Formats: sequence, C-alpha cells, structure tokens
Amino acid sequence: MKLYYAASSPFVRKCLICAHELKVRDQIELAPAAPHPVNRDRSVVEHNPLGKIPTLITDDGEALYDSKVICEYLNSLGDGHLLPAAGPRRWHALVDQALADGILDAAVLTRYETVARPESLRWNDWIGGQLEKVRSGLADFEQRVSALAGRLDIGVITLGCALGYLDFRFASLSWRDEHPGLAGWYLEMAQRESFAATQPG
Amino acid sequence: MKLYYAASSPFVRKCLICAHELKVRDQIELAPAAPHPVNRDRSVVEHNPLGKIPTLITDDGEALYDSKVICEYLNSLGDGHLLPAAGPRRWHALVDQALADGILDAAVLTRYETVARPESLRWNDWIGGQLEKVRSGLADFEQRVSALAGRLDIGVITLGCALGYLDFRFASLSWRDEHPGLAGWYLEMAQRESFAATQPG
Repeated sequence: MKLYYAASSPFVRKCLICAHELKVRDQIELAPAAPHPVNRDRSVVEHNPLGKIPTLITDDGEALYDSKVICEYLNSLGDGHLLPAAGPRRWHALVDQALADGILDAAVLTRYETVARPESLRWNDWIGGQLEKVRSGLADFEQRVSALAGRLDIGVITLGCALGYLDFRFASLSWRDEHPGLAGWYLEMAQRESFAATQPG
Repeated sequence: MKLYYAASSPFVRKCLICAHELKVRDQIELAPAAPHPVNRDRSVVEHNPLGKIPTLITDDGEALYDSKVICEYLNSLGDGHLLPAAGPRRWHALVDQALADGILDAAVLTRYETVARPESLRWNDWIGGQLEKVRSGLADFEQRVSALAGRLDIGVITLGCALGYLDFRFASLSWRDEHPGLAGWYLEMAQRESFAATQPG
C-alpha cells in the first residue's frame, strides 16, 4: 500500500498510529505530499480530487480517503480491535472520533487563518469561534476522562492525535492547565510505541 | 429520537434522506437549531461540544454526530441496505461519501467566506482553492457516472445532497453545463420521495 503523507498532518498520523497498533505498518510505503488549501498538490489530486492527505492507494490500486475510511480499512486488514463491530462501544468510539476530528478541523482552520491567509484578511471572530470548538471539545473529554482509561480504539487514538497536534502547533494554548485529567491520560498514551514513532515534525 | 436540524443544512438533509429510505423517518422528532461558525447555538453545544448539526439524541439519551455516524446508526435501525457490510462495495460507498462530503465542506467554507465573513476580509485565493475542490470532485463523479446508475447507498445519497446544495446556494456555478452525465443521474435521484420531501430551504 502507498500512503500520501506529510509529517505535520494529524490525520495522517492517526492512520499511521492505527497501522502500528494493528501491526500492518510495514505494509505501507510513504509517498511525501505537500497539500495546501490554495496551492493543491497534483500528485494527490490525481488519486483524490479533494487533494487532501491522507490518501491511501491499496494493493489493488484503489484510492481510499478520508482518514476515517483509511483507519477502518486498516482495521479490517489487522485484527479489527480498534473499531468495535457493533453496539454502544462502536457508537462511543465513532462519536469520540468525530469529536476529536472536529477539534482537529477547528485547529487546522485556525492554522490556515493565522499562517496561510494574508495578515490583513484575518478575522478574529472566526479564530475565536474555532478555538471555542477546541475548548468545548477538550472540556467534554476532561469531564469524562476516567471512562477513557483502558480504552484503545479509534476514538481515543484520534483524541491523542488532537492533543499531540495542539502541542505541535498551539503550544501557547497550554491545554494542560485547564485539563489536568487529560494531561495525565495523554502522558500514558503518548508513551505507546505507535505514538512515539509518529511524532509530528 | 431527536434531531437538531436546519432546513438549509446539507448534512442534516443527508440524515433525513437516509431516514426516509430506511423507513425510520417517523421515529425522528426535529429540534430547530441555528448553528453558525462564530455565534454558536448553545442548545446544540450542550449535546455536541462542536456545536454542529446534525446532532441526534437517541431514545437512550446518547448524543450521536457527525452525519456519517448518524447515518450509520439509522442504517443499523433500519434494514441496513444503505451501507454495504463489507468488501469492495463498502469501500466504494464510504469513499464516495467522503468525496461528496468533501465537496460539501468546500462549498460550505466558500459560503462562510462570502456571506458570514466581513467583505473587507475575504480572500479570493481561498475561495478559488475551495471551488477547485468542488470542480475536481464533480469531474471525478462525472467521469464514472455510468457506474453510479442503479446504486442506492450512503455514497450516492451524499452526492445527491451535494448537487442539491449547489443548486440551493451556488446556482451561478451552473454545474450541469460541464457535467451532463451527473445532470441526468441527478434528475432521477431528485425525484425519489426521500429527496422531494427534504428540499433545502
């Protein structure tokens, strides 16, 4: 398989962490990509019209995206333990993935606003609205952090990627200050080999 | 069940179309919501920290989101025919959903840029990049439109919602001009009761 990849992308990282945990990482070759919301990477667009990464090319030559679809595919290649097959555990894992992905979407939109967009065209209310999503999302996880302990599924893996991305791009948010429970939970999660091997950079 | 709802949201429409097709529509009560990227709707945030719709409250009181998760849940309540259980048909349905959702995400971001954002802060290159995603996505579907015929799954339903949203908010794009195959396909899809009963407004 071939994965279009950038070391700074939290959504790529999510896929690689799943691949590590599912012991299929060595089946994946990385293809560097340089996606951008305005200047699109043609090598990615050829396979994924949205021009976004991660995009996975399977051994059958099929292009799979977005990260949710890729992680489900990797889960089906491995032993399937990252995505409960049915029932309440499945819905909890999927909603937690949607919430952590939503935190990431808001953080990435904030990054585009503050780095990609010309300074004179930035809108503070937009940044404020996006960062409020980040804060509300973190507060929700913090409030039920004891129920996260011991879980290893697509929901908590995505949460770990979101916290790692905040450390990487939004250190000034100091998310640990108001979320001591999450800080403790992440300390353990970040020590897993899958996380340590996929540090953003 | 209760669905936080706005008649203008294409992601809400996707859920309602699935509910119609799965014959579970009468189990859903609608709760009007007014989400906005800057001024968040507190009644939604209470259940979904991202403040986004659709958000579904199940009969057990659990909050489910985003639209992908809600549609999968509705599929599990109905007879399950909108999401193939496994194999290539599942990946095709999920990738097509991701592509059509991506077209919608790009269209909604363009709408925020051209309607919500103060005029002096708009960035033409951003609008250009988003609309290029829309066009590349439509071109991809057009190029393989014959394979869409006869399918009724989460992928093609999402595509129908995307085309309906372009008609609703981006009539000036005249998407039919360059995509005659999709125009013919959509003519038939839009006549289904599930689509006719959920016109955006």
